[in-house]
Amino acid sequence: MTSTADAARPPGRPRSVRADEAIVEATLDLLAEGSTIETISVEAIAARAGVGKATIYRRWPGKDALLRDALRRLKGDPPQPSGGSVREDLITLVSAIGHNVDPRAAQIMPCLVPEMKRSPEQYAFYQSIVEPRRAAMREVLRRGVREGELRADIDIEVTMAMLTGPMLIQRVLNWNPDLDEATLPEKVVDGVLAGIRAR
Amino acid sequence: MTSTADAARPPGRPRSVRADEAIVEATLDLLAEGSTIETISVEAIAARAGVGKATIYRRWPGKDALLRDALRRLKGDPPQPSGGSVREDLITLVSAIGHNVDPRAAQIMPCLVPEMKRSPEQYAFYQSIVEPRRAAMREVLRRGVREGELRADIDIEVTMAMLTGPMLIQRVLNWNPDLDEATLPEKVVDGVLAGIRAR
Repeated sequence: MTSTADAARPPGRPRSVRADEAIVEATLDLLAEGSTIETISVEAIAARAGVGKATIYRRWPGKDALLRDALRRLKGDPPQPSGGSVREDLITLVSAIGHNVDPRAAQIMPCLVPEMKRSPEQYAFYQSIVEPRRAAMREVLRRGVREGELRADIDIEVTMAMLTGPMLIQRVLNWNPDLDEATLPEKVVDGVLAGIRAR
Repeated sequence: MTSTADAARPPGRPRSVRADEAIVEATLDLLAEGSTIETISVEAIAARAGVGKATIYRRWPGKDALLRDALRRLKGDPPQPSGGSVREDLITLVSAIGHNVDPRAAQIMPCLVPEMKRSPEQYAFYQSIVEPRRAAMREVLRRGVREGELRADIDIEVTMAMLTGPMLIQRVLNWNPDLDEATLPEKVVDGVLAGIRAR
């Protein structure tokens, strides 16, 4: 969020950036504490952040845009595959699925689940987070096909679901208590690759 | 829930079975309308069912036992694989994952998700529903190994996660709007089998 003009200012984070961060942090704290995407208000966020509402509206056109940024901040940047083998890149991506650096994510992300089919706005938020991650996985698989490491006839979207599904259900639901989450990414990738490698 | 003594009674459902059903239906209706497993009360269920609380406590030792039965009723009986090919049996089981005959399930089941990691009671309810389904899938895979259709060295629990995960995330979250849910069970089963069939 810094611009080149900031380089000429005195040292220390510019006040506008500190306000942005305080607003996003306040948003995430309130969501983690039990506000929902519907019930959270710009008023409450402003109060928690110690800023005026006008400060928020100068930066974000509305609550939805702020929530979208806050959720993106919560999940962090998508992992960057190194571009090595398909196996290594898939393990990098699969290991990150459902993995949360920010502890508030464990409170916030599962609460989106009941809303996915009943709130188009919340579905759009969720898709805005996961589509870039799907795109990264899609590109690894397409590269594998192009370079002859994977069969040309694979169904890439179904393959992505087979790579993603196990990690999500295990990390969000603890679906099967007998599964070892630490070794699951590697085992899922190897299990999927066994069916899609070129012969 | 009928006993042999019921056969000697006049025709028509015995009053006790009607009360049981009314109680379970009231429970599911209240959950679908927004009560949570924590907030729902035996008082409210009794009032909705038109019975006294004593009627409920004669049949169930407490709220938890009633909720367990109600959730089992909601999800229905696990599908019965025909015992034909591994592929057919897996398609039968995978097609049922996240599939709900009772429309109230679409309201109730996703609301369990945020509770899985914070409520041991709700986690136990959920496991009581899914463990029989996992057991059925485990048996199909073990039979496939015994009969030489599947490789002996496959990781059965990971294979089950690869079969279950895609259907759950697609049906509960609509994870990838570009996936066709109708053909997904067959595609997932074929994708997994490609990696585990005996050579």
